[in-house]
Amino acid sequence: MLQNNKENNSAIILIHCPDKKGIVASITEFISKNNGNIIYLDQHVDSANNIFFMRIEWSLENFSVPKEKIHDFFETLIANKFQMTWRLYFSDEVPRMAIFVSKLPHCLYDILSRYKSKEFKVEIPLIISNHKNLEHVAREFGIEFHCLEINSENKREQEEKEISLLKKHKIDFIILARYMQILTEDFIKHYPNKIINIHHSFLPAFPGAKPYHSAHKRGVKIIGATSHYVTPELDAGPIIEQDVTRVSHTDSINDMIRKGRDLEKIVLSKAVWYHLQRKSLVYNNQTVVFA
Amino acid sequence: MLQNNKENNSAIILIHCPDKKGIVASITEFISKNNGNIIYLDQHVDSANNIFFMRIEWSLENFSVPKEKIHDFFETLIANKFQMTWRLYFSDEVPRMAIFVSKLPHCLYDILSRYKSKEFKVEIPLIISNHKNLEHVAREFGIEFHCLEINSENKREQEEKEISLLKKHKIDFIILARYMQILTEDFIKHYPNKIINIHHSFLPAFPGAKPYHSAHKRGVKIIGATSHYVTPELDAGPIIEQDVTRVSHTDSINDMIRKGRDLEKIVLSKAVWYHLQRKSLVYNNQTVVFA
Amino acid sequence: MLQNNKENNSAIILIHCPDKKGIVASITEFISKNNGNIIYLDQHVDSANNIFFMRIEWSLENFSVPKEKIHDFFETLIANKFQMTWRLYFSDEVPRMAIFVSKLPHCLYDILSRYKSKEFKVEIPLIISNHKNLEHVAREFGIEFHCLEINSENKREQEEKEISLLKKHKIDFIILARYMQILTEDFIKHYPNKIINIHHSFLPAFPGAKPYHSAHKRGVKIIGATSHYVTPELDAGPIIEQDVTRVSHTDSINDMIRKGRDLEKIVLSKAVWYHLQRKSLVYNNQTVVFA
Amino acid sequence: MLQNNKENNSAIILIHCPDKKGIVASITEFISKNNGNIIYLDQHVDSANNIFFMRIEWSLENFSVPKEKIHDFFETLIANKFQMTWRLYFSDEVPRMAIFVSKLPHCLYDILSRYKSKEFKVEIPLIISNHKNLEHVAREFGIEFHCLEINSENKREQEEKEISLLKKHKIDFIILARYMQILTEDFIKHYPNKIINIHHSFLPAFPGAKPYHSAHKRGVKIIGATSHYVTPELDAGPIIEQDVTRVSHTDSINDMIRKGRDLEKIVLSKAVWYHLQRKSLVYNNQTVVFA
Repeated sequence: MLQNNKENNSAIILIHCPDKKGIVASITEFISKNNGNIIYLDQHVDSANNIFFMRIEWSLENFSVPKEKIHDFFETLIANKFQMTWRLYFSDEVPRMAIFVSKLPHCLYDILSRYKSKEFKVEIPLIISNHKNLEHVAREFGIEFHCLEINSENKREQEEKEISLLKKHKIDFIILARYMQILTEDFIKHYPNKIINIHHSFLPAFPGAKPYHSAHKRGVKIIGATSHYVTPELDAGPIIEQDVTRVSHTDSINDMIRKGRDLEKIVLSKAVWYHLQRKSLVYNNQTVVFA
Repeated sequence: MLQNNKENNSAIILIHCPDKKGIVASITEFISKNNGNIIYLDQHVDSANNIFFMRIEWSLENFSVPKEKIHDFFETLIANKFQMTWRLYFSDEVPRMAIFVSKLPHCLYDILSRYKSKEFKVEIPLIISNHKNLEHVAREFGIEFHCLEINSENKREQEEKEISLLKKHKIDFIILARYMQILTEDFIKHYPNKIINIHHSFLPAFPGAKPYHSAHKRGVKIIGATSHYVTPELDAGPIIEQDVTRVSHTDSINDMIRKGRDLEKIVLSKAVWYHLQRKSLVYNNQTVVFA
Repeated sequence: MLQNNKENNSAIILIHCPDKKGIVASITEFISKNNGNIIYLDQHVDSANNIFFMRIEWSLENFSVPKEKIHDFFETLIANKFQMTWRLYFSDEVPRMAIFVSKLPHCLYDILSRYKSKEFKVEIPLIISNHKNLEHVAREFGIEFHCLEINSENKREQEEKEISLLKKHKIDFIILARYMQILTEDFIKHYPNKIINIHHSFLPAFPGAKPYHSAHKRGVKIIGATSHYVTPELDAGPIIEQDVTRVSHTDSINDMIRKGRDLEKIVLSKAVWYHLQRKSLVYNNQTVVFA
Repeated sequence: MLQNNKENNSAIILIHCPDKKGIVASITEFISKNNGNIIYLDQHVDSANNIFFMRIEWSLENFSVPKEKIHDFFETLIANKFQMTWRLYFSDEVPRMAIFVSKLPHCLYDILSRYKSKEFKVEIPLIISNHKNLEHVAREFGIEFHCLEINSENKREQEEKEISLLKKHKIDFIILARYMQILTEDFIKHYPNKIINIHHSFLPAFPGAKPYHSAHKRGVKIIGATSHYVTPELDAGPIIEQDVTRVSHTDSINDMIRKGRDLEKIVLSKAVWYHLQRKSLVYNNQTVVFA
């Protein structure tokens, strides 16, 4: 449904603002008066903090406001009135994504196979790694690969090279597909809420290194994986998606690692999908995911 | 949130109608112009069939249309214009529910414990059974119990007695909590989309009798339970909720029955909760559940 | 299957010991040579620590060693040889269980309804609470209820009264069914690995007070519940069972609490069932659950 | 654990036979007397049908029976005595697998990425398809690809070509990775319980064509996928693995297809893994999966 409508070209707006009477009426009236047909509308009110959230998508076919004037009109007529923090997207824009990897291939393969089969409407011009191991995968899929090894002394310098590559390729957002390096705060500032990481535990349990070892030691009966936007505090950014699977005393650490890989790749790819569909919105270190 | 707001008294409208431009704008403008504060809004468009669905709830505090006139105003100003099929509810109305049971107590206990602890805002004045086995449970919880045994000859007659009891107690809707009798079409007509059954399989797999035996024989790795509104066709009514659990070759039929009981009671009670919250809407033998 | 066999009376042995060649052969030969029929055999080797675990159950029908001599024979012929830590149970023994509660009834109702319907083969002669709220439930089910209010000054004294009641009623093990008091180390020593608690989070995430509030604040997409044996360190004992359910930004804290209740009662009752079936074994602050 | 032990070279036996006293004792005594160390033992008794099942794996390091004589010795000393149906495997044998595909790439990519990253210890010398669409994938991964288009007239003939290719490549078992052709009974006879299919529903619900369309029409709240061994009756063979995911009224058929793809690839790859680990055993149109 969305896909068909997208081919017809649509506009998407993500909003948050203080909750007031009349917000939905104002927005929907703006669209319907100008002959727009709403394809998707989801809204949420955080009553505790009195915040209004919305994702609305409407077809641009027959919409009487020209595409290039929508931002100005919405800003003036609606957004300013309600003090909205908002973003406008068009369904025919294809974002540009970079993938960071280290040695483990499962998330990389999963993303690239979705890319090749057009499940993900995205451009992937760039893969960056701190190891050479996965260069062959990039080559198989015909994507530029750069190996930038990182140690305690060259981190700043290497990150600057990474930033140059990202700028050069006009990258909109970054996926850390089991990239085993911690990004500096300076790096993260270039892509706020635009770096998606997969962590191999059900956060906030087992942050940091070797979560399957910790899970095995604690004797949990369920393991998980968590995709989140990266913030300077390690593994503490806004959670986009989580999933879990059962384990038992019969599962060794290696079994947990094996079972966990399936979770990691699915949970990461779901987060990429939400991000690409403009379905995730960050507020107050949490996400609203209009699933 | 809902609970607090409900104490403030709110109105709820469930709608379906042909999809057109301007429906959401019209409804939300009606509420906001009359000083109503929207607590909940969820809408869905079935694009394939061009049907619009909505659940909207707003606080009646300061709402300028008096409670007793809301139906007339909404009908005249909005519903007629868009050819809506719709229902108005008020959060301070407490519906009246009857429970039908046979011999198995787990669903009955689960419902009654939620009733006693005020999780379910409902009145339960009546329990009907075709066996005497669970009379003691009704007594423990202080609820009137009637045993109406059913055989091939007395079915019509007994159902008439049931209908009398339901009328006498002003019952709004009925829960079949593992009631092992098939209701006649005549009986069902008295309560269209107001009888909720729990079937002990993930429908449409294994309809009819002894689904755990069939599941065991087929060697499935997952069993389930399904709550649905009752229609004349057996186990074919609109599905409200389903859940599943894993089984393996080590599970005997008795193990499946035991594991299934936990599914059945939770899945049935979730359906009751959705129904009580006015969150379920039936259209075209399916439900829209505004979860 | 098990239930039928149990009616035929069976012996159950739970074992752990250093792993060596020939353990399974020795045990199974002991049973088969004496004309016992194995009903259940599950074993596990923790390779990392070289520990052997086993649960074996065999029918006593035609078994040539008299019931009262099995312990002595097994000890002498098998257990000593392999330095086993082991326990012998008979399926016709019915253990005696006490329930501790505070104000929330859902776990209590769930346990008592299973008890009444004979799902749990157990005696429940005693319910202890630090509040009077649930006295009526105990009365409905005909179980002795004691209210022992606890404050910072009388804790030791009240726990002594509790221990007296437990001794008087010959209690084998204790269920904390949302009991909101921390037991002292002294109390726990009376029932090592024989007190089962339900914690309302997927441990080790969110130990301690108000886990749903913490989960809501962290913005998790999945909440859980954990049953575990109680040890002196809070919420850090051996995990018996866990389960989870999805939440989203639309779930308020109250919604999480409501959804969590269903997890809590099922997860706690599963732990009780494993314990009653002699299917759980504790080693190194973890459980082996022969599910 | 298994992986380490496998490097040490182990023997695996899968057994089913009529249940009798002394089977486990006989087998484990045979291994321990000959100085074998049991790595894995799982057994199950189907009490209803009186059938004994077992998977046992032991290290060949120091085992006093030479590898090439194990089959003969076990047959003579144990298997004949208990009328066993049994198979012996060695962990250092690498089976050879063919993949059949049509147009959808997700399962193919998933299998090949596990193959490339050595998760699957298998040789994949051959991919067969009835369409040319996925030839490029085979080429990317360096695997021989044959397109054998099938219509109502050439089916027998094309299947004969397929059989020739399978023989030529010494294929041990076949994966149908969303292969959209029904195999003839003659073809299946060449690979009994050695062809694994993925069906895109939770069987036995929605067998045959277009299950997501049927699921959408029925209004289910859960969709699933099922991997099974292929038998002449369509979608009715022994189930190896199943998994499910939630859907709602908001999911269009395309959304179900998208969500279902993730299930299909994971469920198929799990079945492949069980098969490769010699963990699945077929009896009476069901599987015993020693997970």
